[in-house]
Amino acid sequence: MKNKKFIIMPDSFKGTMTSMEICSIMKKSLLLHFPTAKIISLPVADGGEGTVDAFITANGGQKIDLNVTGPYFKKIPAFYGILPDNTAIIEMAAAAGLPLVGNKRHAEQTTTFGVGELIKDAIDNYNCQKIIIGLGGSCTNDGGCGMAAALGAVFTDTVGQQFIPIGKTLHNIASIDISAIKENYSGVCFSAMCDINNELCGSNGAAAVFAPQKGADAATVDLLDNGLYHFAAILKTQLQKDTLHLKGAGAAGGMGAGIFAFLNCDLKSGIDIILNTVNFDNICEDSDIIFTGEGKIDQQSIQGKVISGIAQRAKKHAIPVIAVVGSIDNDIDAVYDLGVTAIFSINRQPLSFSKSAPHSKNNLYLTMDNIVRLIKLFPNKNIN
Amino acid sequence: MKNKKFIIMPDSFKGTMTSMEICSIMKKSLLLHFPTAKIISLPVADGGEGTVDAFITANGGQKIDLNVTGPYFKKIPAFYGILPDNTAIIEMAAAAGLPLVGNKRHAEQTTTFGVGELIKDAIDNYNCQKIIIGLGGSCTNDGGCGMAAALGAVFTDTVGQQFIPIGKTLHNIASIDISAIKENYSGVCFSAMCDINNELCGSNGAAAVFAPQKGADAATVDLLDNGLYHFAAILKTQLQKDTLHLKGAGAAGGMGAGIFAFLNCDLKSGIDIILNTVNFDNICEDSDIIFTGEGKIDQQSIQGKVISGIAQRAKKHAIPVIAVVGSIDNDIDAVYDLGVTAIFSINRQPLSFSKSAPHSKNNLYLTMDNIVRLIKLFPNKNIN
Repeated sequence: MKNKKFIIMPDSFKGTMTSMEICSIMKKSLLLHFPTAKIISLPVADGGEGTVDAFITANGGQKIDLNVTGPYFKKIPAFYGILPDNTAIIEMAAAAGLPLVGNKRHAEQTTTFGVGELIKDAIDNYNCQKIIIGLGGSCTNDGGCGMAAALGAVFTDTVGQQFIPIGKTLHNIASIDISAIKENYSGVCFSAMCDINNELCGSNGAAAVFAPQKGADAATVDLLDNGLYHFAAILKTQLQKDTLHLKGAGAAGGMGAGIFAFLNCDLKSGIDIILNTVNFDNICEDSDIIFTGEGKIDQQSIQGKVISGIAQRAKKHAIPVIAVVGSIDNDIDAVYDLGVTAIFSINRQPLSFSKSAPHSKNNLYLTMDNIVRLIKLFPNKNIN
Repeated sequence: MKNKKFIIMPDSFKGTMTSMEICSIMKKSLLLHFPTAKIISLPVADGGEGTVDAFITANGGQKIDLNVTGPYFKKIPAFYGILPDNTAIIEMAAAAGLPLVGNKRHAEQTTTFGVGELIKDAIDNYNCQKIIIGLGGSCTNDGGCGMAAALGAVFTDTVGQQFIPIGKTLHNIASIDISAIKENYSGVCFSAMCDINNELCGSNGAAAVFAPQKGADAATVDLLDNGLYHFAAILKTQLQKDTLHLKGAGAAGGMGAGIFAFLNCDLKSGIDIILNTVNFDNICEDSDIIFTGEGKIDQQSIQGKVISGIAQRAKKHAIPVIAVVGSIDNDIDAVYDLGVTAIFSINRQPLSFSKSAPHSKNNLYLTMDNIVRLIKLFPNKNIN
């Protein structure tokens, strides 16, 4: 009997376990019952904090440390990753993340300038021609103007003064010149990991939905939203980029709009970018089972999420996909059609989340243990 | 490929689902994915309410309706079961059950006389030579004296007066004559389903542990406990039966002691009696998987319970056993050694019991559905 090959590719369980912790727990369980199995751990990043680590764990590569401009224009230590194929992984949160500002949350004052510096370093110093930007966990609302400025974009106000727009000064933008970006970086392939669909402005936009958690009161939300409307109008008239109804434009304080307009960057679901980056189709071809997971699966979250993204790819190769999750809602039968074989939850006892959450790691391990015991019972169809 | 054969043999999930309901739900799930499978449903009875129905569902047979003496010496409708092999199934609760008395709970006043009448009817009118008595759910504390009296035992008090002892008059017993029982029923094989280990008397005895839920206050518990001590002394001196340290003697208000002393009846774990009655070893031999379940599995409850009882038998035939339960405690790894292949809980979301209980049936169905989807993936080892 040939050795089994298992792929472990879970999302994080928000609030209880990181994707890498889940990989480690699942691997331990699999190796207990299949000691000679080949295990491929591919922790899934969501674009937010931990994205660089997850990519490097899954692909190998190196982490580059450097000082960049922080959210309040002071130098801070930051980092990005370079994969073995010279793709750079930029985690926006590393230079403009909410944890960086502590309790000093002022979405109207913060900049993404440091994110641009990370990108610039990867291209200028390491010749990365493929850049993946993880959106998420930001403390900013500058529409990505800071990032663009770091890459050479020039913003001018109504009196002809150059400036770096932040949330509260977006409405001052009179003109944008991105000729330097085009000249220096037009050959670079940018893609962004973006799993939210919010538009740039309005009640479902960046300011209204996300700015409050970044410290904005109602008046500030209005200020920011008006600024983003003005920003969108300028992008349309001067760069011919329509960001007003672009899904995901509202991600990360309008960064979605900014990278689309300034870098010609498509917004993609994180899982699709990851599956491509790890060469999923090659990896899964001779595997026996793929294990995945998410904190919660419900009817609304089926599309575009990790489990369904993996299942759809695996289905083409007829590889079974077993999902282990923190919570399973009803009416999720569509996932079986997408390619999921079976879904199990880690809840071993009838306990509320607050009571069960501290035991998540043990519950995951024991749930995996029973799934693997069941699998061990049967010879694998790909082997017989 | 030959058709699959599955055995479904769950205990009830106390408070949410009967064993028969669980059989029906598991069967529905199995037939959805294996429409031509042979399904054998063997709901497990615990000796209490529903025991007769469970046995008849599992084995076939008939239910005999008759009027007997109720807990307060008034006639009530009751029943027992006769299996195809002429074994009688007596559910003690049918004639002396707690639900029969409603709020009128007085453990010191109630009798098991009707239980004796059920037994007598089965032997005298249907020639049943094998009697299984389910202990559990009683409203009585008469040590089975009422039952014995119905079968011909004669109890005499200190002034030579015949009487039928009840809880509060146990201490009046001066002599017991069971010659009529010996004469008429010595050839009958009695066995009792008894899953509790309580002794007859003392702090862990019938009165102290169970009488309070049968309406006894502290003074009444003392009265009953003293009566049982006296009863045990009489059984020892006159019938040479030592019930004082017999495990299970305290079951059903001392009924455990009574059937041991009066009927020479062994107290067995319910699951062992059931496994024998259904000819489990024959049935399971060519089956593919056995599905079982319990409301809760924990370290203490592993021995002598349904899951472990089934697993130990199934292990001899190398048949996989999958358990689906309402709650899994930690440190239950011993069950795997006993023969359980894997255990899954029905908790799909992190919710307290009060919130999840109303969804138990749906949760069980969906959990089974995913287990069966996983099983379907693999060819069965007993078939290949």
